[in-house]
Amino acid sequence: MFSPLIKELIESLRCLPGVGPKSAQKMALYLLEREHQGADRLASALRNALDKVGRCSSCRTLTEESECSICRDEERDATRLCIVETPADVIAIESAGTFDGRYFVLLGHLSPIDGIGPEELGLEHLEKMVEYNQVEEAIIATNSTVEGEATCHYIAEKLKSKNINVSRIAHGVPMGGELEYVDGNTLALALEGRKKL
Amino acid sequence: MFSPLIKELIESLRCLPGVGPKSAQKMALYLLEREHQGADRLASALRNALDKVGRCSSCRTLTEESECSICRDEERDATRLCIVETPADVIAIESAGTFDGRYFVLLGHLSPIDGIGPEELGLEHLEKMVEYNQVEEAIIATNSTVEGEATCHYIAEKLKSKNINVSRIAHGVPMGGELEYVDGNTLALALEGRKKL
Repeated sequence: MFSPLIKELIESLRCLPGVGPKSAQKMALYLLEREHQGADRLASALRNALDKVGRCSSCRTLTEESECSICRDEERDATRLCIVETPADVIAIESAGTFDGRYFVLLGHLSPIDGIGPEELGLEHLEKMVEYNQVEEAIIATNSTVEGEATCHYIAEKLKSKNINVSRIAHGVPMGGELEYVDGNTLALALEGRKKL
Repeated sequence: MFSPLIKELIESLRCLPGVGPKSAQKMALYLLEREHQGADRLASALRNALDKVGRCSSCRTLTEESECSICRDEERDATRLCIVETPADVIAIESAGTFDGRYFVLLGHLSPIDGIGPEELGLEHLEKMVEYNQVEEAIIATNSTVEGEATCHYIAEKLKSKNINVSRIAHGVPMGGELEYVDGNTLALALEGRKKL
């Protein structure tokens, strides 16, 4: 019942994560009724980002520059490398504010069913980078999902052969978490990883 | 910590209704990491809709055509007019499938604080349309909010002077609704609008 262009806009808004038919309709009408300026800005930003954003030549995160701001920062310790799945994970670790090394962004995890193997994650590039920067410690911070753990083990095996320290971020009870509400798997890991006081 | 173009994309996604900083970041990274095709389609759809979608010359709904499909439909009864706030309301009433008249879309409601008066809602155009189409019945289906009610009363006064039947859609207990969970205002309206059996 909408005209073709409005229908097309509603359909194409559905590519956004978490947007179903009802929200897409609401968004489209909102933009056309009341947010022409914002919609215009969004269309340009989207087009610009699509045309120009690629990958950092060093850590493979998303950026339109040839090297991202973290890789360009001379003050950061290139001998310590944190390996994460996505650019959002970089932001999360940066916001903790305690890591001053560099990152390597896989942009995914091993998933043979989807055709994502070591090549797609740039693991060859990772090995070269480790050698080139004389990395001494690699901290693997992939998600603690089945795929994240598998990816972690694969990378750990590869890097261990290069005689560097490979570690995994700790899993356990989150700060402020009450034991009563923490799931069994997490508690098992928390017990296993206990520290002497 | 994101590069400028990615930051701009995240910022501009926030003009969408219901999208906060976290969802905007998630959407931007999702589009750039995994949905280049969808993002491309979205950018084009947005640009096309912005450039071409205007208002139906007759009912003032959003469309890129000079007259919308409902106004072009000769089989619909032009002497019955349903007045609604938004194009989404047209879709809602159409999906009920029992109204075969035409619509008039206000694209808003009277709101002096936001500078929305009778002119912005096209009420002069409405009066002309009523005369031109020799409308016999006008059904006002603005929302049952304070502003919607005020708009309804304003329009009703205007149209009554033209000697046509002006009615308001019924308010009451929704189908399948349990009395226990219906609010007091709705129940008061339901009692007031009781029908003889």
